[in-house]
Order: sequence, then structure tokens, then C-alpha cells
Amino acid sequence: MKRITFLTDFGTKDGYVAQMKGVASSITDARLLDITHEVAPHNIREGAFILWATAPFFPVGTVHVVVVDPGVGMERKGLVITTKKQILVGPDNGILLPTAHLLGDFVVYEITNPKYMIHPLSRTFHGRDIFAPVAAYIAKGIPFGEIGTKTAHFVDLQFSLGEHRGDRIVGKVMYVDRFGNLITNIPSDILPKDVEQKKITVISGDYRWEHLPFVSSYGFVKPGEVLLTIGSNHFLEISVNQGNAAQTLMIKEDAEVQLFFS
Amino acid sequence: MKRITFLTDFGTKDGYVAQMKGVASSITDARLLDITHEVAPHNIREGAFILWATAPFFPVGTVHVVVVDPGVGMERKGLVITTKKQILVGPDNGILLPTAHLLGDFVVYEITNPKYMIHPLSRTFHGRDIFAPVAAYIAKGIPFGEIGTKTAHFVDLQFSLGEHRGDRIVGKVMYVDRFGNLITNIPSDILPKDVEQKKITVISGDYRWEHLPFVSSYGFVKPGEVLLTIGSNHFLEISVNQGNAAQTLMIKEDAEVQLFFS
Amino acid sequence: MKRITFLTDFGTKDGYVAQMKGVASSITDARLLDITHEVAPHNIREGAFILWATAPFFPVGTVHVVVVDPGVGMERKGLVITTKKQILVGPDNGILLPTAHLLGDFVVYEITNPKYMIHPLSRTFHGRDIFAPVAAYIAKGIPFGEIGTKTAHFVDLQFSLGEHRGDRIVGKVMYVDRFGNLITNIPSDILPKDVEQKKITVISGDYRWEHLPFVSSYGFVKPGEVLLTIGSNHFLEISVNQGNAAQTLMIKEDAEVQLFFS
Repeated sequence: MKRITFLTDFGTKDGYVAQMKGVASSITDARLLDITHEVAPHNIREGAFILWATAPFFPVGTVHVVVVDPGVGMERKGLVITTKKQILVGPDNGILLPTAHLLGDFVVYEITNPKYMIHPLSRTFHGRDIFAPVAAYIAKGIPFGEIGTKTAHFVDLQFSLGEHRGDRIVGKVMYVDRFGNLITNIPSDILPKDVEQKKITVISGDYRWEHLPFVSSYGFVKPGEVLLTIGSNHFLEISVNQGNAAQTLMIKEDAEVQLFFS
Repeated sequence: MKRITFLTDFGTKDGYVAQMKGVASSITDARLLDITHEVAPHNIREGAFILWATAPFFPVGTVHVVVVDPGVGMERKGLVITTKKQILVGPDNGILLPTAHLLGDFVVYEITNPKYMIHPLSRTFHGRDIFAPVAAYIAKGIPFGEIGTKTAHFVDLQFSLGEHRGDRIVGKVMYVDRFGNLITNIPSDILPKDVEQKKITVISGDYRWEHLPFVSSYGFVKPGEVLLTIGSNHFLEISVNQGNAAQTLMIKEDAEVQLFFS
Repeated sequence: MKRITFLTDFGTKDGYVAQMKGVASSITDARLLDITHEVAPHNIREGAFILWATAPFFPVGTVHVVVVDPGVGMERKGLVITTKKQILVGPDNGILLPTAHLLGDFVVYEITNPKYMIHPLSRTFHGRDIFAPVAAYIAKGIPFGEIGTKTAHFVDLQFSLGEHRGDRIVGKVMYVDRFGNLITNIPSDILPKDVEQKKITVISGDYRWEHLPFVSSYGFVKPGEVLLTIGSNHFLEISVNQGNAAQTLMIKEDAEVQLFFS
């Protein structure tokens, strides 16, 4: 059983995603699954984060089609990236790269063979006319070298990690989820060993929040209270129990955060 | 062909649902289907209603994974509930229970065997680390007794039904759908036999609407007019033809409604 | 491998779509795919456009279930339309017809056989009780003549095309997509051959935009600038690079547009 996933900024109203699935369905019986289509329009970094957080949970051989593509129809290349266990397909704008680094042993191919594209090729929708059919042919077993040529030239993107600086840990908010949880780039293993005994001060921009608790899940503080915890990606998360930390703390995606422990 | 459905309050933007499906896909080739991911965050009752309204239409053997889980990481149990024809998996907060009562002959198991969980087990996302893999192993045929132990201790939840009180029928709004239809808990079989000949007065809070017609479908009144009808779940619905009854009548989920027939 | 797609105005919150899929799953193992459920409530024309733009990309034999159905429970018929390569199922309100004309060689059947409906038949949800099971039985191979009877009486709908009038091209906006792209009904082949060398004036209502460029994809103008291009359906599109043309130009669905080339 082969699987193809789809991750785009197309939304689900317009039929664009369904057009991609129609094309893939005409080529292969692989199972088609959605990662998300709600990436903010043209937000490459956000798409890169969601792919990076999600792809590792899929089985060996899964092909991920990723289309956040403000440069469509320009000179940007189309890529197939093979990794140790999964395959990534999408535009050469960096969106695939954090996941390629994470999955490991990756090789980048530029898509060149028109045989695996839909014709007439549109200039505005390569998701449908190039990436979906290429993914479907990969699921069908067409060799990578048949679809394109290896390349060492591609837009790279790697997520930075939070780190110790003097008496503090400095990181940033990688992503704000539907619940308003602030997912930072601070990995759990750089936190103090006795973090559950500490009170934490969080500084972001001009704001400062003191005496915040670190707990192992949301429910250990009262509803509406701020907490720090380790999220499901093993990074530090700032949350409000049954509330919205992004709104409560007025912190946005990409904001720097500084933590003091006392 | 086995089927697993997913019902959550995760939304579809964040990749959480896809992580659950990735985990399930790594264990089983069962078909994966969505019920909804748009339950209002933490609204157990709303999730319970949608499951209860939807599960009966799925085939024998379907496994439903339900994750509206404000108590994740706390002491609340994880449950597998077997019923006459389908299986329910989710947290012990009542969300599965109206459906268990409806489907009948149910037996409750507490999930205890770490063998069927993902490790390292997160404290904030049991949907991915416990409920999705457990559902996948059930679809694969692992016996319930292998996954957990029978229990008689669980949070129960049963929907009340509207009823006659003196000269009126008293009930409440169980759910407001996308179209603004007010779905009540008043079953069609307690309405007067000649209800189509009656004019109906609806009282809710301080408001009162008189001379409303009962019709067999929306189009029997003019666009914009209020009507009462029997909805697709065989409960009384208050609607506006091609309009939004919740907005027009200013009635919300959970509001009491009283009906007089004349 | 048989496939059934679903296109509705039900949204994805309420469980209605899942009820349809549950019914279909109880009848057939055909693969179930979504086109969209975000059609504006009761907007037949919008649903018709999305189906028309999407269906051609699906494989031979696909059955499309389409439910935008303000007349449910009234006297409107339910239809199965066979075309050269695919099958359409839905209400007799015109929504299927542009696609039937596009796919070609179509024959219209009125659904009459109660054997292929769910009982008790609701008066408000024929998507679940008639169209989903009929589509599933078609995917299973039940002959069309068994499900209903051929009819020559149905609501027709055909999209008009933009055309030359004197010194201008006159058309209208068929659809506004998530990105705010204005998709017109002006086919690419009626544009001047040297359109890429022209400056274009667009008039809509009281507004007038001059000196707009025609380019082959969005990125050929600066972010925020207006452009005209050929969209992925081979119709003229008015867009803003990385912006929202519908908002920038204050043009809505169904608005007339006039183009001058100089």
C-alpha cells in the first residue's frame, strides 16, 4: 500500500486540491491523505514547519507533495528529494529542506522529464500539472533518475534551535497552533533538570511574565492560567489551560522569547 | 475492508490530525475517514453530539477515534468501548457515552497496555500516541482484552429528551449546524399527530415567536421565513428557509425551548 | 478501483458529510474523495463552477455526488447523469449541467427506485438518503436503468463565454478563489495574439484600471501589483502577485468586466 500526502496553502474551498488528487488518481491507486491545506497563503516557513512536524509519523515509502509556491511559473526549479525512508516533492523554495535534514541521507533531484507532467502545462498551477503527477509516478515505481537529474543547487532552509546565553535560554516561536499554543524552538533537553521545581520568567519584546510554572500537561494549572510544558514535538511550549496563550500573552509566530529560571 | 474514523477539536491546519493518520497508517491499511475536526476547542458535549448523530451510518466493525481531551496528561483514563456493531476509542470524559448507549450492548475497557502506544509517550497528545495506534491495532484484529481491562468506572453522559409538561413540550437545543438550523432534543414521535395543521408558538428565554408553521421541508415556506420541521436525525428542528434560524431567532446551543400548539 | 467524490455546501463541522460517507461505505469499498464542502450555502452556481473546473481531472468511471440543494424535500427531481467517461449524481437544479455539457454525450436519468435509497427517507437530507447510496450502488455496478428512468426534462445551466464586442472584450467573473484571483469566463484563445506586448485597461462597474500588464505567471510583476494571466483552467485571470485582486480591485463574483488592449 503506497501513500501520497498533500500539504498546500490552497484552502479546501476551490477545488484545486481535488484537481491534484484527480490527477494522482488517474495515475496510481496509492492512498491519498491530507496533511493540511490551511497554510497561510505563500507562507513557506509555516508550511515547512508543519511538514517537518508531521512527516516523521508516516510509514516508509510515503510520498509527500508540498505546494506553497509563490514563485510558480518563474525560473524556480521543481524538486524530488529522496530521504532515508520517505520522498518529498515540491518547489525549490526551501519548504522541503528542514524535513529532508530531519529524515536524513537526502538526495535532491531537479524535475526535468516532461513525460511525467500534465500537458498543456499551466504556468500558474504546477501542483496539479507537475508535482501531483510526479508523486503519483514515484508511488507507481518510476525511478527517480527517470524523472529528473541530481542537483547540488537548491534553496536550503534549516530551523535554528534555542540555546543558552549567559543566565538565560533564548529561542523563538516557531509556530502558533489552533489552540494558541506557542511552540518554541527550545528542545526539551536543554532545560534545567529540575525545571519542574523552578518558577520561570518569560520575556518577549517589551513584555515580561513572571512566576510561570512548568508542568507536564495543561490540566496541572487552573483553566485560564499560563504554563510551560513539553509539547508533542519535544519542544518547549507556552500554553494557557483551556485558553489561548498567543492571545493572552500577545506573542506571535517568529517572536523571540527569553527564559529565566529561579 | 476495515475503517477508522477521526473526530477531534484539532482543526485541520496544524498537522495534528495528519500525525494521527500517519501513526495509524504505519500500523494498518484500514481506510481512514474524517467525521469532523471542527468541534469547538474542548467542547466535549458538541463532540459527543456529532459522534452520536453520525456513527450509526457507518458499517459494522468501524473504529471511531474521538479526541476532545482537555484532561490530556492528567489522571483521566483512555477508553475502548465495544458496542453491538462498532468500536469507540477516546478519553474518559463522557464524549463516547451517548453513542455507546445508542449503539447498545456496550462494554468499557480501560487502555492499559503500553505495547500499543507510541513511545516516548507525550503528555499532551494522546490522540497521536495512544488513541490512534490503539484504534489501528483494533482494526488489525488485536483482542480488546490484550489492549486493556474491563472497567465499570467511567464518566457517563446521556442526552436528555424533550417531553410534555402540561400544555406544552419542553426541550432544548442540542446543536446548531452550519446553516443555523436549531436541532432540538424533541423526538418527532412526541409531537401532536396533526402537527401539520397546527400553528406553533416557540418561547426561549425572554423571546416568543408565534404562528410558526410545521412543514415537511424547508422549501414549503418563503425564503427568510421561520419553520419547524423534522430534521435528518428525526428530531424537531427550527429553521429558516435559505436563512439562519440561530441568528434570526437569537437562540443558542443548550437554550431551553418551549412549544405550544394551537 | 472505483472512486466517488463529494461536493457540497455542508461545511466540514457538522458530521453531514461523514454521514454520507458512512452510508456509501456501508454499500461499497469505492475510494471516497472530497472535492469541496465549502460552497457558499445554497449557491448552486458556485458549486456548478467548482465541479466543472475539477471533474475533468478525475479518472474514467468516477462518480461525483453533488449536494447543494435548497429545494430538498420539494418536488425537484434527483438525477443521475451519465457522460462519456464519468457519472454525476445530485439534485435537478442545474448544478450538474455545465459539467455534463463539458464531459459530453450525456444522458439524464431521474432517480425513481426506492430500493436504492435509505429508509426512513428524511425530507431534509437527500444527500445522505438518496444521492450517496445511489452513487455507491452505481460504483458497485447497478445499471442506471435499474436506478431510474431516462428523462428529457431537467433544469439546464450553461456558463456563457466572454466575447469581442466592438473594440473590447466583454466577459464576467465566474469565480473568486481563496487567493482573491478573479477567474473570468474569457477563454485564452480570444485574446489578441500579441497580448503580452499590450497594456490592458479593465473596466468593471464605475471603476477603471489602466496600463495593466499581461504576464505568463504571477511572479513577473512585483508583490502587490495587479496583473492579467491565463489561469489553470485556460481562462483569463486578474490577479495581484502575493496579494488579493478581489480586495484590491473591489470586484466580486458575477461582475461584468470589459477589457481594452492598447
